[in-house]
Amino acid sequence: MSQGKIDVLGIGNAIVDVLARTDDSFLAKHELQKGGMVLIDAEGADRLYSEMGPAIEASGGSAANTIAGIAALGGKTGFIGRVANDQLGEVFTHGIRSLGVEYNTQKGNDGTPTARSFVLVTPDAERTMNTFLGSSQGLSVNDIDEDQVKRAKITYLEGYLWDPEDAKKAFLKAMEIAKSAGNKVALTLSDSFCVGRYRDEFIGLVENKVDILFANEDEIKSLYEVEDFEDAVKKVKAQAELIVLTRGEKGAVILKGLERFEVAAEKADVQDTTGAGDLYAAGFLYGYSQGYDMEKCGRIAAICAAEVISHVGARPEANLKELVDSKLS
Amino acid sequence: MSQGKIDVLGIGNAIVDVLARTDDSFLAKHELQKGGMVLIDAEGADRLYSEMGPAIEASGGSAANTIAGIAALGGKTGFIGRVANDQLGEVFTHGIRSLGVEYNTQKGNDGTPTARSFVLVTPDAERTMNTFLGSSQGLSVNDIDEDQVKRAKITYLEGYLWDPEDAKKAFLKAMEIAKSAGNKVALTLSDSFCVGRYRDEFIGLVENKVDILFANEDEIKSLYEVEDFEDAVKKVKAQAELIVLTRGEKGAVILKGLERFEVAAEKADVQDTTGAGDLYAAGFLYGYSQGYDMEKCGRIAAICAAEVISHVGARPEANLKELVDSKLS
Repeated sequence: MSQGKIDVLGIGNAIVDVLARTDDSFLAKHELQKGGMVLIDAEGADRLYSEMGPAIEASGGSAANTIAGIAALGGKTGFIGRVANDQLGEVFTHGIRSLGVEYNTQKGNDGTPTARSFVLVTPDAERTMNTFLGSSQGLSVNDIDEDQVKRAKITYLEGYLWDPEDAKKAFLKAMEIAKSAGNKVALTLSDSFCVGRYRDEFIGLVENKVDILFANEDEIKSLYEVEDFEDAVKKVKAQAELIVLTRGEKGAVILKGLERFEVAAEKADVQDTTGAGDLYAAGFLYGYSQGYDMEKCGRIAAICAAEVISHVGARPEANLKELVDSKLS
Repeated sequence: MSQGKIDVLGIGNAIVDVLARTDDSFLAKHELQKGGMVLIDAEGADRLYSEMGPAIEASGGSAANTIAGIAALGGKTGFIGRVANDQLGEVFTHGIRSLGVEYNTQKGNDGTPTARSFVLVTPDAERTMNTFLGSSQGLSVNDIDEDQVKRAKITYLEGYLWDPEDAKKAFLKAMEIAKSAGNKVALTLSDSFCVGRYRDEFIGLVENKVDILFANEDEIKSLYEVEDFEDAVKKVKAQAELIVLTRGEKGAVILKGLERFEVAAEKADVQDTTGAGDLYAAGFLYGYSQGYDMEKCGRIAAICAAEVISHVGARPEANLKELVDSKLS
């Protein structure tokens, strides 16, 4: 086992995505809010699966997708998240280890299966997620490897971890270790509905614990309950060392202290937006861990996001390192 | 359970594909013959999986892909093939039932997992398959539902079924039932290496039992051990009622008795050739079961094949029915 430095350690729900094309009438029939993520139980998962169309399975999980992207770019990475000792657990484990990610979280063995997210992709390329957390909600403080967190320049956490009670404690423990070691803590708000569930706690985290914040336009507006993006910018400015706000095809706004940078989006033939934010964070954090300036970090981020939305699935298909090198040269 | 007529009943190995991009050096290192299919055991499967790159999982199996395509075109279909009572078995079952295919084969319960095929896609879009047959080789004569075979206008069998000993017996039983009921028997040779393993038996089947034969250029040349495609055409002509020979971008040659038809290939931005032959057969058999003429059958076949090679995975992603309707109108 490598004991060297890690650029970015991700902690998140370990999920296998079950991706299927669908239409708006299916979302309406199942009362699903387009673009969001809702949690479902085992019974709900069985019901939805039996009614949805043909699907493919692919490793997912928000922070895990980000870590996969950073590894594909050549960064040194680790991941903490819990799967079960089952076939989907093998799928997830292969997906992340095959990229060279340090991943050793003990598998759940209590019969609860590996988490899966039913990702429904509508013809407008938007994705709507229904997640059965399964064994990933069993992540606990015991799964946080103190040495691994200390070795990581950046510990990256997903807001979704706030849903399972034990995972939230693990999240806070990792944050404390990282802060004590003088390392950076990064957080993605994950989802505007998730923000709605935990608004006050997230505002507290951003103000007091987080060094690097990722949010998209809906999430940051939801966090501060404002209608206008610029109002949200005013509220969040300087609340963390670095704030990265993504706005889809309108590009991104990066706030570094009182400085503001705007980075354009990369053109893409959009097939499926699943993983767009995750891969944006991947490109950005990779660049940041390499010491690149904000514009370059934002540009790498935009290239990675454009790659992942140009096909179905939340993990890169192209050789990201070659792609970024060719676009930057 | 529907007891109505079935246009096409497929019988084949029930497999989940594990698709990964790779390069020629990986094939060389593992001594894999590009474009072929080799069988591997559980240990070989574990070894290959641990060494290959990130993958996605998707329902596969040659005849199963064909049946999925026919169902997506609007045909009435059934499938017989064996999975295990495990998560990959659920994946396969969902993939085929969600298309409306009548699929009721009893699941294996002896601990042997569901079959999987590691499909390695090289930058030239060619696929090389390594198949662990798992529970699919447990298919036996008991799994052949006599009533279902009788209800099917066409029973479609894959040459790969000749590999597992019990499945071969099931194959022969289904063929006998179909012939006795006055229904059509269709066969795909599957793979030139598979043809090499069972040449004499396959020649016997084609001469005596098969009404509709599918083969690609390599397979038909391998069957008759000739170097030249036209020599193979001379040998196979009139050996079966209908012979469909595919030649990739060179299109297809259809032999109906002594008549010969040539159908051009459909243009495609080729990403992954997995499933090309399977979906060609899907389009052709769908058209044939609808009573269309040879040119129209070949044209539908070419459209379906072009769709499946334009993305990773062996099942159609687009709405095949709409695609074919729009191209034919």
